[in-house]
Amino acid sequence: MVSGPPGARPEGLGALLRPRGIALLGISGRAENLMSRPLRYLVEHGYTGGIYPVNPNYEELVGQRCYPTLADVPGPVDLVLVLVAADRVEDAIRQAAAVGASAAVVYASGFAEVGPEGLALQHRLAAVARETGVRVLGPNCQGFLYAPTGVVATFTAAADRPLTSDSGVAYVGQSGAVGGSVLDLATDMGLGLSFWASTGNQADLDLVAVSSELLDDPAVRVLMLYVEATDDGQAYAALTRRARETGTQLVVLRSGRSSAGRRAVASHTGSMLGDDVAFVLTSEDSGVVLVNDIDELLSVAALLSTGRRSEGRRVAVVTTSGGAGSLAADQCEDLGLEMPELSADTQDRLRPLIPAFGALANPVDVTAQLFNRGAHAFGDVCRIVADDPSVDAIAVFVTMVVGDAGARLAEDLVVTAAKLPVPLLVGWIAGQELTVEGRRVFREAGIPVFGSVGDVARAAARMAPPAHRGSAPALPSPPEVPAGRVRELLAADVVDGPELLRAIGIAQPSSTLVTTPEAARDAVAALPGPGVLKLAAGDLAHKSEVGGVRVGVPADDAAAVFTELVEAARRHHVPDVEGVLVQELIPPGTELILAATAGRDGFPPVITVGLGGITTELYRDIASGLAPVTPERAWSMLRGLRAWPLLAGFRGAPPADVAAAVDAVVRLSQAAVAGGERLAEFEINPLIVGARGGGATAVDVLVRTTGHRAPLGE
Amino acid sequence: MVSGPPGARPEGLGALLRPRGIALLGISGRAENLMSRPLRYLVEHGYTGGIYPVNPNYEELVGQRCYPTLADVPGPVDLVLVLVAADRVEDAIRQAAAVGASAAVVYASGFAEVGPEGLALQHRLAAVARETGVRVLGPNCQGFLYAPTGVVATFTAAADRPLTSDSGVAYVGQSGAVGGSVLDLATDMGLGLSFWASTGNQADLDLVAVSSELLDDPAVRVLMLYVEATDDGQAYAALTRRARETGTQLVVLRSGRSSAGRRAVASHTGSMLGDDVAFVLTSEDSGVVLVNDIDELLSVAALLSTGRRSEGRRVAVVTTSGGAGSLAADQCEDLGLEMPELSADTQDRLRPLIPAFGALANPVDVTAQLFNRGAHAFGDVCRIVADDPSVDAIAVFVTMVVGDAGARLAEDLVVTAAKLPVPLLVGWIAGQELTVEGRRVFREAGIPVFGSVGDVARAAARMAPPAHRGSAPALPSPPEVPAGRVRELLAADVVDGPELLRAIGIAQPSSTLVTTPEAARDAVAALPGPGVLKLAAGDLAHKSEVGGVRVGVPADDAAAVFTELVEAARRHHVPDVEGVLVQELIPPGTELILAATAGRDGFPPVITVGLGGITTELYRDIASGLAPVTPERAWSMLRGLRAWPLLAGFRGAPPADVAAAVDAVVRLSQAAVAGGERLAEFEINPLIVGARGGGATAVDVLVRTTGHRAPLGE
Repeated sequence: MVSGPPGARPEGLGALLRPRGIALLGISGRAENLMSRPLRYLVEHGYTGGIYPVNPNYEELVGQRCYPTLADVPGPVDLVLVLVAADRVEDAIRQAAAVGASAAVVYASGFAEVGPEGLALQHRLAAVARETGVRVLGPNCQGFLYAPTGVVATFTAAADRPLTSDSGVAYVGQSGAVGGSVLDLATDMGLGLSFWASTGNQADLDLVAVSSELLDDPAVRVLMLYVEATDDGQAYAALTRRARETGTQLVVLRSGRSSAGRRAVASHTGSMLGDDVAFVLTSEDSGVVLVNDIDELLSVAALLSTGRRSEGRRVAVVTTSGGAGSLAADQCEDLGLEMPELSADTQDRLRPLIPAFGALANPVDVTAQLFNRGAHAFGDVCRIVADDPSVDAIAVFVTMVVGDAGARLAEDLVVTAAKLPVPLLVGWIAGQELTVEGRRVFREAGIPVFGSVGDVARAAARMAPPAHRGSAPALPSPPEVPAGRVRELLAADVVDGPELLRAIGIAQPSSTLVTTPEAARDAVAALPGPGVLKLAAGDLAHKSEVGGVRVGVPADDAAAVFTELVEAARRHHVPDVEGVLVQELIPPGTELILAATAGRDGFPPVITVGLGGITTELYRDIASGLAPVTPERAWSMLRGLRAWPLLAGFRGAPPADVAAAVDAVVRLSQAAVAGGERLAEFEINPLIVGARGGGATAVDVLVRTTGHRAPLGE
Repeated sequence: MVSGPPGARPEGLGALLRPRGIALLGISGRAENLMSRPLRYLVEHGYTGGIYPVNPNYEELVGQRCYPTLADVPGPVDLVLVLVAADRVEDAIRQAAAVGASAAVVYASGFAEVGPEGLALQHRLAAVARETGVRVLGPNCQGFLYAPTGVVATFTAAADRPLTSDSGVAYVGQSGAVGGSVLDLATDMGLGLSFWASTGNQADLDLVAVSSELLDDPAVRVLMLYVEATDDGQAYAALTRRARETGTQLVVLRSGRSSAGRRAVASHTGSMLGDDVAFVLTSEDSGVVLVNDIDELLSVAALLSTGRRSEGRRVAVVTTSGGAGSLAADQCEDLGLEMPELSADTQDRLRPLIPAFGALANPVDVTAQLFNRGAHAFGDVCRIVADDPSVDAIAVFVTMVVGDAGARLAEDLVVTAAKLPVPLLVGWIAGQELTVEGRRVFREAGIPVFGSVGDVARAAARMAPPAHRGSAPALPSPPEVPAGRVRELLAADVVDGPELLRAIGIAQPSSTLVTTPEAARDAVAALPGPGVLKLAAGDLAHKSEVGGVRVGVPADDAAAVFTELVEAARRHHVPDVEGVLVQELIPPGTELILAATAGRDGFPPVITVGLGGITTELYRDIASGLAPVTPERAWSMLRGLRAWPLLAGFRGAPPADVAAAVDAVVRLSQAAVAGGERLAEFEINPLIVGARGGGATAVDVLVRTTGHRAPLGE
């Protein structure tokens, strides 16, 4: 696995992967000290470049000559492993620069994680990295390994065993503890990682920077990431796009989905989104596979490293136990996977192989008797099932096929998996003791063996693309909204919502601001029917709560209602009452909520749609996309609502004007992009969508801005 | 572990557990034949009663003297293992009866599972069992084992290894394959099962009968069941009640939740329930723990065998990795578990143990440095956390604490777990190889070690009681409904729904049946305001779909509307139109759906509540209880709706008359009990619940009956 180091001086991150020489500054000579391990690991894992322990107290360590100072090291040193305490790290980086090293790993803790003093130390470390040009991994990290060159520059116990590197799978994450577990579990399952890194406090190199370096590496086909925070959405988005371009499959485990921010409940749509909505949308848009647990990260990566990925959510189950098949059906349904009935043709082909008391439809219950039909009968069944056009993945469940029979089945399945066009997932629901040999067969082939029905179903669900909800009809793209005008309107201290709607071309009821009871009466009289009277106040998010909205007011009552509204405003101490708006009454239709919330942490704004009224709040039936959204994406968001039947025409009701709703979503999203940092929130609630051809009308609008003012002009 | 067999002849099922002698009729002499195994197992696992192989071709097998026929066996034979083919089974049972055996196990397949001929054979087997009084386990089963007496009467490969029996955990299930996996996995994790059985086709003894026999056995404290179907709900309910009385904890894995029946979609509430709603409710009402997977069945049983069960859903996480703690928080939230912040007092007590860069609140991140504080530091932390009154269970996550350190930690945690008042769940997120010793320590203590964050969270969620939603206020119990009158009304060919409501005391609008336009006008004029006109037809589930309901009709329009309705009925070919009902218009309120659906498979009727209108259909926001429900249960069902805020008073709206809604639910449920088999479905949609004190009014009612007519009279 290990090739010799190149002759030329590697630049930047290249010095991590292919250093000509590695110095270990401050290496410990005591074997029980964690900080002695990197030297032993480099030697044991076969790094063939120069290994230079630096410690004035020893002549030799682990068979390597020891040097009193870094300056005494003879050969070229491209990488320095800094094994000294926090207060000596800054000086160590300067020494590294002095001997011409391009990169360093800083393991010491005592930086940002311990408080203000440590943070100051970390800032100085970052500064010296910039100043000297030495790229730094860490501090407070467990280092990294790169198997092709045998650079095992870490002290994790997980590296204290033979490693292999033929899987094409790599890992990058901040946490050292999670990283150690990932490496150890990967080795256990026969998944030799080609690269592994714990980036720690990320004073200089962060997860995205390290990951980017791996995208062009032919030794990395699948990259596992463990992400605790993303403060640079643009960099993450760029990484996911480049990964797609280079054909590197990203599998991402993110942590902190349940942060306090998500728990906080407020009354507007945006606040119901998890903090990581933009992260999830960015990931999904680039084909990143998101997982929820460490075991899922590993098993999904192992499955994807074969180059096979489910094209849909349809799973066929092949099992030695009808019971396991039934449990699999339950769990698949829970996870939104489908288990379609196999075609009559497929069942005809299976019939000669499977006893009459087995099952052919899906799950396919081969029964224990199948094994009387030869060593390849199970594989034959899988191949026939995989030929069925309705199958996107095969899940195999084996129960008590153990001992030699288990080993033979494992060999059959290893050969079979390599020939199938779809992923094969193997669940072996039996103890370790009677299945050691069979498990070894799978391990050597790099095929993950799952221990429960649910583990298989979860891995299949994570690997599968999101549920396809039908294709959008042909939809026109509205013209781009006038970005300059949007920014101009948003620059005001109090944004004129109706004017903003006009500017971006979203319809709204005709509306007149009145300030006397008489004017209210006259304004209603000018409408074709009864009107809607609303308090007009500067920033009143929920007018209905203070009784500030009256619907269906005839002209005769308008003056009295005007007075009541103004009274109510006084009673509730509503500030900045400008008068009362008299609006046209929009005929009933399907009411939607549309919202744009500002992009955070470098992510674009998130556009959310939901059913209007109380439903959105009670049932969180919302769908989101990143701004700007295309008409197809807007349609797909609406289609993704559980309330979609109301738009499509429920129980014989006429279908709604979905095209008009799509148009409004697209325009809102463009306005959010134009608004940039200035726009905190832009909500239309409700958007009344009429019957087909009836258009969509924004009945109320709420705009919140931040302190940022975008430069005016397009 | 094995005590000698008793001297007296055991009766019935007692012959399975404590036979004085066991004959193996038709035992195979070829070791590769599965049907040779029971003899070897009996000998190897130390059964000390008489072992009598019966096979005319051998003098001796496995060191035991062999007999040509059953009649030749000298000693008392209480149990016969029938190892012959299906067509010879009936005769074998007669022979067993002839020698005085009380029970037999029939392993052969070739019965109901292969078709009509096999089914006939099975019926004859059941008949001969009844006729002779020999209780039969099987056919098509893998047999059973009872560890206290060493009776290992099975051929599963899972018994081909040393078994222990000190766990107090037993297992019963139909499926042999699933059963084999359960036994093998249990042995792997150090959970020696005291009893294990595969009941197969259940010609005579079924899962409930076998389970009932175990409830009084002191060797069984936790009973795992794998249930594929329940056709006798009363027997299952009786089993769960007796289990609660005897202090035997049931853990049930059920299969087939996703049956075709559940998938079938229809438009009424009842059809949205899973097929197993009554099964789930019966289980929950008796404190049965329901699980979804084989690994959950075992780990939850192992945890419960310590006698500790979570009293609530609040979990404290103690971890060596902040990352694992954060992942645990995410998964706990996904599963509806809480992770409360620990009290200030608890955090004060933890502070001296945990480094400053650790975390104290929950998750508690002890950091790797904790291990410098002595061999018991981790256990000390767990004990302090368990003292916190807000903690119902502790989940420990260990990452790369391996080798000797891992073994020491395991020893510390084994001692700690035994002292804690709450369950301790251990997740060890590391490979097997470096943790062999530590895992052995846990295994010998019978403590399950979970391999992923999600596995721990799922086990904690299954063990915990359902989410507590606050206590019901004091609610009056309505008087019992007149059961005789209900049965009388249900006996009619077309049930008079309004009369049924009157009989059981649920309010409804005043209503007049009219048959002419003029009568319609007069009837509306007699109301205090506009009326509601509805087609009156025999069995019309969804009047609104054919335009058969008009709301808010003034007296002047009533005649014309009458004519329109009758026209619409003609156009849609609505049968049995009796005229038009003119009803009082009930003021708007919160609209609920109430439904009673007939009990199936021996279960009581299921009562379901949901929010009225489209919401129930789109969001399946429903809650159910078994009839009859108490006022407290009815309140709790309403409280369990996501729409509860609408009843409690949403955004400052006045609270609804929940007491009136509760009263209606209770009365409906009593009517369902009184209706018995005759009542297929009884639905009130909507029940309009007014503001507090305003009552609840059933605006429409639907009653379907079956062919069964209950005897009249109370």
